[in-house]
Amino acid sequence: MKIIVFGGDGFCGWPTSLHLSSKGHQVLIIDNFSRRKIDIDLGTNSLTPIQNMSRRLETWRKLTGNKIEFENIDIARDFDKLVNIFLKFKPDGVVHFAEQRAAPYSMKNSTTKRYTVDNNVNATNNILCAIVECKLDIHLVHLGTMGVYGYGWMDDNPIPEGYVEVTIDTKNGKLKKEILHPVNPGSIYHMTKTLDQLMFGYYAKNNLIRVTDLHQGVVWGTQTAETKLDQNLINRFDYDGDYGTVLNRFLMQVAINHPLTIYGTGGQTRAFIHISDTVKCIEIAINNPPKKGDRPLIFNQVTETRRVSELALLVSKKTGAKIEYLKNPRKEASENELVVENKKFLKLGLNPTTLSEGLLDEVTEIARKYVDRVDEKTILPRSKW
Amino acid sequence: MKIIVFGGDGFCGWPTSLHLSSKGHQVLIIDNFSRRKIDIDLGTNSLTPIQNMSRRLETWRKLTGNKIEFENIDIARDFDKLVNIFLKFKPDGVVHFAEQRAAPYSMKNSTTKRYTVDNNVNATNNILCAIVECKLDIHLVHLGTMGVYGYGWMDDNPIPEGYVEVTIDTKNGKLKKEILHPVNPGSIYHMTKTLDQLMFGYYAKNNLIRVTDLHQGVVWGTQTAETKLDQNLINRFDYDGDYGTVLNRFLMQVAINHPLTIYGTGGQTRAFIHISDTVKCIEIAINNPPKKGDRPLIFNQVTETRRVSELALLVSKKTGAKIEYLKNPRKEASENELVVENKKFLKLGLNPTTLSEGLLDEVTEIARKYVDRVDEKTILPRSKW
Repeated sequence: MKIIVFGGDGFCGWPTSLHLSSKGHQVLIIDNFSRRKIDIDLGTNSLTPIQNMSRRLETWRKLTGNKIEFENIDIARDFDKLVNIFLKFKPDGVVHFAEQRAAPYSMKNSTTKRYTVDNNVNATNNILCAIVECKLDIHLVHLGTMGVYGYGWMDDNPIPEGYVEVTIDTKNGKLKKEILHPVNPGSIYHMTKTLDQLMFGYYAKNNLIRVTDLHQGVVWGTQTAETKLDQNLINRFDYDGDYGTVLNRFLMQVAINHPLTIYGTGGQTRAFIHISDTVKCIEIAINNPPKKGDRPLIFNQVTETRRVSELALLVSKKTGAKIEYLKNPRKEASENELVVENKKFLKLGLNPTTLSEGLLDEVTEIARKYVDRVDEKTILPRSKW
Repeated sequence: MKIIVFGGDGFCGWPTSLHLSSKGHQVLIIDNFSRRKIDIDLGTNSLTPIQNMSRRLETWRKLTGNKIEFENIDIARDFDKLVNIFLKFKPDGVVHFAEQRAAPYSMKNSTTKRYTVDNNVNATNNILCAIVECKLDIHLVHLGTMGVYGYGWMDDNPIPEGYVEVTIDTKNGKLKKEILHPVNPGSIYHMTKTLDQLMFGYYAKNNLIRVTDLHQGVVWGTQTAETKLDQNLINRFDYDGDYGTVLNRFLMQVAINHPLTIYGTGGQTRAFIHISDTVKCIEIAINNPPKKGDRPLIFNQVTETRRVSELALLVSKKTGAKIEYLKNPRKEASENELVVENKKFLKLGLNPTTLSEGLLDEVTEIARKYVDRVDEKTILPRSKW
């Protein structure tokens, strides 16, 4: 198939582009390098030495013979270029990673809040609008987040995949409805993904656009089968207080012999998935689109759930690191249960990499290997909310 | 109180500003004249001869002694100016009409779709973000729409005011929840108001912003007690295929001796409110804010529901006009029931003007009086979806 990957230079987008290319799809990456530019503004950098786009693509072509194309476009702004590319490339599907994706960054200040809303909403609407404009039957696969659901709405019951059946008591009897799971986002970033959902529902209904929305958990791990093939293909690893997720913070702390820092009690339970499973899920989604006229198809893209404290213990056991508790800089419940349904991907053949098997590789292959590139003062959180 | 009216030059915003001023509030209007500029692009115009802002305000001051201030700011873009005005004026409340508000206009083409999403989402987010930034306790009153609910989700039961109680069956028993009424917008314009709702919910929870969202029906009528005081204060009357609502189309058709045109069967039922009730509702909302920390307070701002065919009959009976049926240019159910709860405003003292009493005034005072200003070719619909 012909696939456009929006945000194909990023942490999930780059390995996804390589994976789709390795599976024989014709891939076009569109990216405006916003993630690399934010690094410049924040004074941060990927721990791993990622190469520029032309070197990445040249290396991939020499290694595999597969050509991946690239265009630098700001899709939240350059609508006409987007339409022209659709008309010229005629994609069967597009994968939409082109959103500002860090909750802490989205909460830093008014500028980053407004950028996150403006960029994410307009990027999504422009893609949908361009699909309508060019009159092609393009399947949109979007990266959502488990954060749209919030925590605890279903008590200890598993979070269903997108939709939930409810009953309303009326004077004329009981009404049964299947509705989008009510949302409860914990940051401006997560809020934008709840807005995306409503846009998908509208365009699916009004213009019969086929949409798959993947509510992803926290992605861990750095490398996939394809990014490991050559040093020039290496994926990014973020460890700073804005873009680094909890696990990457722990890994860096191991590498610099700092105690693992837990915010609050560590009772926060989060859903996780390894980057090599992310890329497989996206290929499965591409190969299993909803039918024209269907409501958006929603998958929970997670493979396991863990408490933060449990994660720290796991890392500590494997590495001997100490654990330290800090005041939580975020407004969130100090403890929560989290059970997530993820049957759809398992049924379609996903065979997950688990934290207990993959964690030590991250310490030795990434955190300790590149420890001389670390800027220690960027590890701790800089956004509070 | 000190009140800012965003979009205070528009059809609802202008009479609201006068009404709040007449009640002793200190009013500042912010508007970028986008509505007047869209008229220029569309080659349309208000049927009534509306005056420019400085003449409007000068007339009001001479008549009543009340000074209304004005600033020309694009709040979807000029965030810093917005924050500075909040810090200087220190409003107790703001009324947010600053959104592109015509469904047909929002569906014309990719440019108007994208403008509607970009303007409406960024305007709302900027207001919320500016309230947080300036650390003042400002009550936000927003004009939503009955269109967020869609039609028929509750079957023939009354649409509740914003929230609905549901039950979820789980293996651990029944869960009872009060949720935001699920949305089913019929146009890009209506979709933006469903996005607004989620932003309000987020900021109310995370930043304890006090928000009132008014889900308004189709507004009819032109003048209020205040706009009638002087010819220079006259309110706008839109009759073109994009901005004119069904009733205004009928009124113009009466004036030019054209049959009343019904799209489809006319079985579409819509909720209505007179402009003089709109301005009263907004003052009631301003005087009855939710408490800090409350979820957004939602009112249904409607006073009666009518089928389009019934409305045509009403106009026909009063004027002798003929009725003609056209193919419906929109994707919508050909018939729907609509029952709406509106107890909250009635309880707070609203005493509505009804269609059967007010309609004939519109024909004689507006449509026939200004018929020499009409451009007949703009009356019929120009957007199809």
